[in-house]
Amino acid sequence: MELAPLIPLDGAIAVIDQTRLPFARTTRTLANLEACALAIETMVVRGAPLIGATAAFGVAIAMRHDTSNDALEAALTRLGRTRPTAVNLHWALARMATKLRPLTPDLRSAAAWREALAVHAEDIAANRALGEYGRSLLARHAEGLDRPLRVMTHCNAGALATCGWGTALAPIYLAHQAGLSIEVWVSETRPRNQGLLTAWELSEGGVPHTLIADNAAGLLMRQGLVDVVITGADRIAANGDTANKVGTYLKALAAREHGVPFYIAAPTSTIDAASPDGDAIPIESRSDDEICVLHGIDGAGEAAQVRMFNGPCANPAFDVTPAALIAGILTERGRFDAARITEALA
Amino acid sequence: MELAPLIPLDGAIAVIDQTRLPFARTTRTLANLEACALAIETMVVRGAPLIGATAAFGVAIAMRHDTSNDALEAALTRLGRTRPTAVNLHWALARMATKLRPLTPDLRSAAAWREALAVHAEDIAANRALGEYGRSLLARHAEGLDRPLRVMTHCNAGALATCGWGTALAPIYLAHQAGLSIEVWVSETRPRNQGLLTAWELSEGGVPHTLIADNAAGLLMRQGLVDVVITGADRIAANGDTANKVGTYLKALAAREHGVPFYIAAPTSTIDAASPDGDAIPIESRSDDEICVLHGIDGAGEAAQVRMFNGPCANPAFDVTPAALIAGILTERGRFDAARITEALA
Repeated sequence: MELAPLIPLDGAIAVIDQTRLPFARTTRTLANLEACALAIETMVVRGAPLIGATAAFGVAIAMRHDTSNDALEAALTRLGRTRPTAVNLHWALARMATKLRPLTPDLRSAAAWREALAVHAEDIAANRALGEYGRSLLARHAEGLDRPLRVMTHCNAGALATCGWGTALAPIYLAHQAGLSIEVWVSETRPRNQGLLTAWELSEGGVPHTLIADNAAGLLMRQGLVDVVITGADRIAANGDTANKVGTYLKALAAREHGVPFYIAAPTSTIDAASPDGDAIPIESRSDDEICVLHGIDGAGEAAQVRMFNGPCANPAFDVTPAALIAGILTERGRFDAARITEALA
Repeated sequence: MELAPLIPLDGAIAVIDQTRLPFARTTRTLANLEACALAIETMVVRGAPLIGATAAFGVAIAMRHDTSNDALEAALTRLGRTRPTAVNLHWALARMATKLRPLTPDLRSAAAWREALAVHAEDIAANRALGEYGRSLLARHAEGLDRPLRVMTHCNAGALATCGWGTALAPIYLAHQAGLSIEVWVSETRPRNQGLLTAWELSEGGVPHTLIADNAAGLLMRQGLVDVVITGADRIAANGDTANKVGTYLKALAAREHGVPFYIAAPTSTIDAASPDGDAIPIESRSDDEICVLHGIDGAGEAAQVRMFNGPCANPAFDVTPAALIAGILTERGRFDAARITEALA
């Protein structure tokens, strides 16, 4: 999977503007701290691992301009309050802080860039590794089938959500490349419709897929049309409870009801040992406009939007799936039972 | 609740064009058979009871022009193939056929109109009656609460889905009018967004409500923010399995998980004793455009649409909730256990 949503440049990064997909593939250059923070807040970049890498580069870019203690702390603070749920953000910032705080300011600029490059490279390697564990898992689920393996996913935990390969989609890409016959149910993922990103990148990768309304997941499972569910994660608590895009929990409940294995795929940087369980994970509330204003193209193919509603809304962006509903968590260190996920950190 | 989505005229009916809501309240006059059939197919009118009444008037309007056997059978056939899932359609057509087939053609025009008026009046009366049973049920659920009762609904089973009052919303309107403090979680209901209709009519009725993405239902139940779920139905099988708008089943699963009672509200015309269970209920598949093309208003307040996606989709419009997940079915004859719903026909 060649798709690279974040490319390190000299003192800046180039990112795919994910708010313009699936209709326009445009790249933005982020060359200062505030641009990186805004890109995270407005979801130009999104997906827990990519948010983490963008934040690491945000610190490194800030250090190109000012390596003082004040500048370092200001960068960590600004980036730390961009989004509350994805723990990879805080993991990446803590890693940068641990590396840079002990250094004298003259050493920080080069060290920060090296560390951000390491976060980037390690994310790609981690996804490739967890993808390989996932590929063999999918191959086992496909054994004996005389039709394609049908995998359902939610939101976008693909290459676009990471520095490359993706988490939930890495096993799918690797299985597809290895010749496994596979079809993907892509859940639209209202209100931000990240399913459209998933459909777009699966299409780029040549993987057969079908977009569905989020509401259709239960029916499809009841009809026996789903063999496996696999999603990413934004934060995994110490007991295995997993926060992911809102709607994940409903799919997990339906999967249990119909004996469909439900897997999480996430690098170990998503594990938050400091959150004992799902109740400790903060759930981000986002703007009503995400529900009320819809983006697409008009009849002339130009970017356009319509307002669908003007009234009271609530827009929680994540939900928590209890560990008991999760058949396993795929990480770069292998597959773990959800309840024993902290062993992946050992 | 004064809202009348279907008003009988002289040889025609006036209906609210529900494809234009919530931003424009426009009325269309349907004065011939084909106009009635198209209004059902394109969801100018929707909601199982309102579809049934529109079909009854469609036959009556056809009889104004031609009362021959051929014309009667043609009307029954044309209307019968408009939409497959809602059984009220077939119930209303069977009722018209039973009344009209034995009559000589000279008697059919007046008899057809009388019968359609009866279908219309009985629907309003049935909803008022089931609403009263539902009102006392909601009052019991509110006992001891020191905050508003929080009710979640899905799709639109309100006045707009019927000839008046609604099914799922009738108890809510009556409870609100009786002074019960009540708040409604309105599920958006992708892909056709009938939740916007529900929000609109609750707003007209002065009932506090909040629109949510369908995906948020599980989180809200897990957070203890839902006391009761109540939805309408498109067809209830003899064993109590209930077809309703796609996404209902996911809410029912989450409700069971969190001990939240899940009720169905529907007139007895929704019961299909000929379908032994949910597997016998046909599930309508609708156009990909319902998923891909979004309707609203532009910056100038004019009706507008955007295309959000161009790729493979699946769009099943209904799902089936097994009887075991249903705490009770409210009909105009009282509340029944789902498994004993055919007793409501006795």
